[in-house]
Amino acid sequence: MESVWSDGDAVGYLDQRALPQAIKRERATSVDEIVDAIRTLAVRGAPAIGVFGAYGIALAARLHADDAFAAAAQRIRAARPTAVNLAWAVDRVLACADGDYAAEAARIHAEQRDIDRRIGSAALELFPSRGSILTHCNTGPIATAGAGTALGCIIAAHRAGKRLHVFADETRPLLQGARLTMFELREAGVPATLLVDGAAAIAMERKNIDAVIVGADRIASNGDTANKIGTYGVAIAAAHHGIPFYVAAPRSTFDFSLATGAGIPIEERAPGEVRIAADDDVYNPAFDVTPGRLVTAFITEYGVLRPPYLESVPGLADRPRLLVPEPARA
Amino acid sequence: MESVWSDGDAVGYLDQRALPQAIKRERATSVDEIVDAIRTLAVRGAPAIGVFGAYGIALAARLHADDAFAAAAQRIRAARPTAVNLAWAVDRVLACADGDYAAEAARIHAEQRDIDRRIGSAALELFPSRGSILTHCNTGPIATAGAGTALGCIIAAHRAGKRLHVFADETRPLLQGARLTMFELREAGVPATLLVDGAAAIAMERKNIDAVIVGADRIASNGDTANKIGTYGVAIAAAHHGIPFYVAAPRSTFDFSLATGAGIPIEERAPGEVRIAADDDVYNPAFDVTPGRLVTAFITEYGVLRPPYLESVPGLADRPRLLVPEPARA
Repeated sequence: MESVWSDGDAVGYLDQRALPQAIKRERATSVDEIVDAIRTLAVRGAPAIGVFGAYGIALAARLHADDAFAAAAQRIRAARPTAVNLAWAVDRVLACADGDYAAEAARIHAEQRDIDRRIGSAALELFPSRGSILTHCNTGPIATAGAGTALGCIIAAHRAGKRLHVFADETRPLLQGARLTMFELREAGVPATLLVDGAAAIAMERKNIDAVIVGADRIASNGDTANKIGTYGVAIAAAHHGIPFYVAAPRSTFDFSLATGAGIPIEERAPGEVRIAADDDVYNPAFDVTPGRLVTAFITEYGVLRPPYLESVPGLADRPRLLVPEPARA
Repeated sequence: MESVWSDGDAVGYLDQRALPQAIKRERATSVDEIVDAIRTLAVRGAPAIGVFGAYGIALAARLHADDAFAAAAQRIRAARPTAVNLAWAVDRVLACADGDYAAEAARIHAEQRDIDRRIGSAALELFPSRGSILTHCNTGPIATAGAGTALGCIIAAHRAGKRLHVFADETRPLLQGARLTMFELREAGVPATLLVDGAAAIAMERKNIDAVIVGADRIASNGDTANKIGTYGVAIAAAHHGIPFYVAAPRSTFDFSLATGAGIPIEERAPGEVRIAADDDVYNPAFDVTPGRLVTAFITEYGVLRPPYLESVPGLADRPRLLVPEPARA
């Protein structure tokens, strides 16, 4: 199931808000619609909004020129602040040498598919041949416009014959785990059990969880990792139980300009996502930051990175781009 | 706002499922209605279901005799398995020397009010004169049929002039924090902020939380504490951040027959509380067990208990009952 695609004069996307009840495919035909789709989480998942933003720049270039285009590009780039993939993809499209934005966006998309496959392969060695894996939020195909990051690793291991059972945190407030992860695991035929976020710790104690694996929205040079709210608590609980905690993410999620996670902007979303009474005061950060010292390893398209991250992460910046066959033009 | 009361031939209760949208007062007039009110969480909170169960025994004694009464008493006693207060209160009523069950139930209720006041007083020394306190689930007046345990401590400290700000976990799946704790704090005039359970860890890191305080459903002799699902993860996160983690509970919540929490039965509730798709497999324990080593102190009507709990907790069993003036008869 494709989550993002080039659709003639528009950018196509799967409206993730409607899942699992309905499979709604939509077309964004203006910069406003691109920005709204990202802001409202119709398109979400750090790599997926990167690909979507790249296609959005190509759309904006067809619709606008000069200053209007520059302003449109900035609006797309800033539609959500935490995931660095969006800014990375927009900057890469804008910087492409020949100015063929549509081709560069398609290239980013094709590379993302290849990257996800590589991440899935790199993770194989980390999973037991049989066991239980806990995950938080949604990091499957619809979150990356490819094969997925963390959930992609689980699905790849399942396809390689490993007998894994997934415990999926429901992931409040927007229930990406309950709505999207359970849906994608069912599609992939991977056995899964849903639990509330607060049950992750007792599951670690009583359900023989072998590993935790999550995705990321931005990773600093020391391994500090911004990801969906709740990830930090899961990482602390995993460390408490001696369970390995893995983060699966492409290089584009690493922000080599940041020494630590203290510099990662954390988006706070509307109180209406949480509150019951109209005048409830709400603290609703969409992400938290897990310190690198709680991360057992990062799984990237270049392989598995181990501590000390201040050595292994910056080394990632210097690796050559992984070339993929030039995609067919839309 | 009373949550449980004797109402002539019936047992009155506030339907906690309807809050905060509606204040519905109901009357249980049969053993079936008593059991249903407990099972469906219309009446919830370990001390409140103890008081409610006690009144339920008095009702059952008016309606049934001999074997039918004995069976009814067993059904009430077993309506929910984890909170020990229910079995404790039922056993105490059944054992009362003069067989006046209504008087013994009223005595338990009056004692609970006194106990809650004493717990609130004992907690005062543990709170800063100004600061932020995080809590999980609901432990206010409606959860105890008195002044509340953990939330009662916060409200008592507020009334004593301490300037406390509460961070209230919403407490999935049934949202007792969002629905009930926020409601009770608003009624009491205590400033409060609601957050999803997954945001507790980042709140501890970024919001200067001075202490965590929760209630309990059953406490073993070594301090292992069964409480609402999610408590264990909060306790681990509090320890990780060096934040004191307090449990406020009356002596009736301690199960001196259990050496450790391994013997506490954990109720698993219906998958429908969590799942979105009809065929989702769900792990839905209503409680988890926090090891005593993560509990900084217990706050009881006899004062504050500190580690080592294998010494301080069993000592609690031998303390004399706190007498209160005989309540007026209904």
